[in-house]
Amino acid sequence: MTGQQGQGVVTGIGDDCAVLQVPSGQQLVVSIDTLVEGTHFLPGTAPRHVACRLLGAAVSDLAAAAATPAWLTLALTLPRSDPDWLEPFAAALAERATELGIRLVGGDTTRGETLTLSAQVHGFVPSGEALLRRGAQAGDRILVSGTLGDSRAGLETLLRPPAPHADVHYLQQRFYRPEPRLALARQLRPHVRAGLDISDGLLADLGHLLEASGLGADLWQDRVPRSAVLQRFYPRDALVWALSGGEDFELCLSVAAEEVPACLKVAERLGVLLTDIGCVTAAPGLRVLDAAGQVRTGLASGYDHFKDSI
Amino acid sequence: MTGQQGQGVVTGIGDDCAVLQVPSGQQLVVSIDTLVEGTHFLPGTAPRHVACRLLGAAVSDLAAAAATPAWLTLALTLPRSDPDWLEPFAAALAERATELGIRLVGGDTTRGETLTLSAQVHGFVPSGEALLRRGAQAGDRILVSGTLGDSRAGLETLLRPPAPHADVHYLQQRFYRPEPRLALARQLRPHVRAGLDISDGLLADLGHLLEASGLGADLWQDRVPRSAVLQRFYPRDALVWALSGGEDFELCLSVAAEEVPACLKVAERLGVLLTDIGCVTAAPGLRVLDAAGQVRTGLASGYDHFKDSI
Repeated sequence: MTGQQGQGVVTGIGDDCAVLQVPSGQQLVVSIDTLVEGTHFLPGTAPRHVACRLLGAAVSDLAAAAATPAWLTLALTLPRSDPDWLEPFAAALAERATELGIRLVGGDTTRGETLTLSAQVHGFVPSGEALLRRGAQAGDRILVSGTLGDSRAGLETLLRPPAPHADVHYLQQRFYRPEPRLALARQLRPHVRAGLDISDGLLADLGHLLEASGLGADLWQDRVPRSAVLQRFYPRDALVWALSGGEDFELCLSVAAEEVPACLKVAERLGVLLTDIGCVTAAPGLRVLDAAGQVRTGLASGYDHFKDSI
Repeated sequence: MTGQQGQGVVTGIGDDCAVLQVPSGQQLVVSIDTLVEGTHFLPGTAPRHVACRLLGAAVSDLAAAAATPAWLTLALTLPRSDPDWLEPFAAALAERATELGIRLVGGDTTRGETLTLSAQVHGFVPSGEALLRRGAQAGDRILVSGTLGDSRAGLETLLRPPAPHADVHYLQQRFYRPEPRLALARQLRPHVRAGLDISDGLLADLGHLLEASGLGADLWQDRVPRSAVLQRFYPRDALVWALSGGEDFELCLSVAAEEVPACLKVAERLGVLLTDIGCVTAAPGLRVLDAAGQVRTGLASGYDHFKDSI
């Protein structure tokens, strides 16, 4: 997945501002994301994990808009200037930025008691083509990419470490190294009405999408995609984490029923799982249905997970 | 001073990304700036002061590039969700943003132990017209806007409060409420070779400008503009603070000698002080000359002031 790395950078790091050229016919898409040690990641997390988590989460917002990554600015607040932390962080940031097709063009480094990182990402979309939360229509199908709940399980393995096992590594990678669905979003864009990425949990984020259009949805819980690893390792929690765990950074899309086959074909070609989990309804409210088609109650829409946003 | 507030905002706050339209023929100019409580401002500082300080410093980087402000994103980390802090902060931020012609288009609010604010500012310049640090030539004159050292004196009145006096208010306003020299920079742009804003102190920032072109300068210390208030209130420290105090957010410009009269005319029309304080030399190194033309030694180029960047 390569973006527009390096394209349009007239003046990069080292002046008061970066000077940047947005290609003609394109709109600029921007998002800012903050990670705070002790809030979004555990104290003592390896700097390479912090870099991958920061960039993955930030660039996922560009994927959610079906944008192509271009430029990154970074505000870094550190308790002290520590080369043993800074060097591996910078190396991992540079490597992951290259993989994601985004280029560091500016930053500000300051001293403060708590390690705090804010990444602003900039990308392009052809004018008028950004994928937004609004635009869903009653009758649309709801598609999600990948599997959900793995990231929450990865956090669990850090909070309460189980015996070493290959699955633990998989789950921790899903927590530390979000993989923005850039190519999928861009190629699905012509077939999709509305979308976002799942950062607060499926129920909460699907709720945001529906709210933007004043609609509701029926969602079949058994269809919500869960990895084999998650179900084997945390069989009792898998469903709740898939519904409400958050930090998955997968896409949730509202698609006209007749466009679903085209979407599935795109996903298959890209080798990404894409699953139809329900439909948009004119009646407001998000209903989670069990295998018997009964509405489940008592599901928290915003699980109170490690990410404690205010 | 109105900027491009509201112009080009296709989708603002509330989606995964803001979608923005850069006007044709213009380049995008961006800068990110962080303030940390206890590092850049004193604990307990009134939220309106924090808002004005944050925006003024950030937008000053746009002025330094001779850009017109357009959009703002804000990453806010707070120890707790406190309406008594947030409401006056948001009100002051909105008011100051309107004054500076910049519009809030996105943000991220998180919880963390230390109050930390990162503002990314976005502006426009006509393509190829950004004012940069490089470009100075030997023989150029060095011009600075406004008076220097007031902000450092304002900090002093907070660290060691003197008896109440109208002058104290003036100096504190200079510390809390930087006034980006937006109109001056844009109107001087055709006459100027290189420039930046003074955030680290005149000597340090002029050093950055000279370094960008591999040049030196002779600077007459008695010409460095100091306010009557500063000289009356802190006669012993006034000169050192004007040279090295930092946080002034005035412009420092390198101008061909024959363009100086045009620059002074622009400044006069705008009612802004603009002072010729020295000249650029082919010999590297920054020499501060006293009234007798003798080179002063032992001047710290980067005063170790309250702003403790790393």
